[in-house]
Amino acid sequence: MSTTIDIPESSKVVVAAPLRPGGWKKGIAIMDFILRLGAIAAALGGAATMGTSDQTLPFFTQFFQFEASYDSFTTFQFFVITMALVGGYLVLSLPFSVVAIIRPHAVGPRLFLIILDTVFLTLATASAASAAAVVYLAHNGDQDTNWLAICNQFGDFCAQTSAAVVSSFVAVVVLVLVIVMSALAIGKP
Amino acid sequence: MSTTIDIPESSKVVVAAPLRPGGWKKGIAIMDFILRLGAIAAALGGAATMGTSDQTLPFFTQFFQFEASYDSFTTFQFFVITMALVGGYLVLSLPFSVVAIIRPHAVGPRLFLIILDTVFLTLATASAASAAAVVYLAHNGDQDTNWLAICNQFGDFCAQTSAAVVSSFVAVVVLVLVIVMSALAIGKP
Repeated sequence: MSTTIDIPESSKVVVAAPLRPGGWKKGIAIMDFILRLGAIAAALGGAATMGTSDQTLPFFTQFFQFEASYDSFTTFQFFVITMALVGGYLVLSLPFSVVAIIRPHAVGPRLFLIILDTVFLTLATASAASAAAVVYLAHNGDQDTNWLAICNQFGDFCAQTSAAVVSSFVAVVVLVLVIVMSALAIGKP
Repeated sequence: MSTTIDIPESSKVVVAAPLRPGGWKKGIAIMDFILRLGAIAAALGGAATMGTSDQTLPFFTQFFQFEASYDSFTTFQFFVITMALVGGYLVLSLPFSVVAIIRPHAVGPRLFLIILDTVFLTLATASAASAAAVVYLAHNGDQDTNWLAICNQFGDFCAQTSAAVVSSFVAVVVLVLVIVMSALAIGKP
């Protein structure tokens, strides 16, 4: 108790100043790392779910084809490729996130991540939204163009592709959070 | 000429230091403002082009309906609404961009813009990509699901919706550029 009087006021400030914002930024960096792990799971899970979607009907319908897989739609092929790319990028971004944890004040790795994150966010959102548009058409069809809803016949296929779309939107939301957190960590002193 | 010798070396450095990065950041801020004007034109132009897409056929076809408009697809309605929203947001963001021009070193307005830009980039990308997926189906159809390409009948409608999609992707690319530039301006000293 008596030692607190011995420490001069100026040295107290010097010790306290670099510790508080560092701790705050370290917390952001750890959260960033955990969110990235979640986004990897969501992106690769979405790609795998979409890539394995395949249903062959055991009976005849009014359609000429009796099999539906992700190959049937170019949009779904695009979805599998881009989601795998986003997942791969997120795995490669983990070391940079670790650097941000070790050095919370370094701007370089965060700036590098925020720029690439923005590019891959756009890629992920594009594939998720385009797949969602096709899944919506598969569920509801379109009267004016006479496109019939195929989900009555291909129920399992529709359930699997819908799950993949939901998973990819989880990855999109996590990426938005990661970018906002990185921006705050760079901008605030 | 003789006055340069009178100025001490230390004061020269003090004068030069705050000017150079300030000028660099001011340039980024002015570029940001111009890019935002371009993005407004692209987003509102895309929304207007899509919103006015309407074609009535003068003859009978194998379809039951003889009119195609953006109302025919839920995705296109979503496109018009979100693109109008993105355009509206970009107009409202102009004052903050002006603040960044006047005060190039202020982090606050740039941080505010980078966070909202990310959210609206996601919105713009989602609507652009989902509309692109439907436009692709309208052009090419899908064999496995027996969805016929409608662009043979509704040529003008397809041309107009395709133009709207291209315009919206221009807005997406500009928004990515704006976010990357803001991140660089915040991160670099």
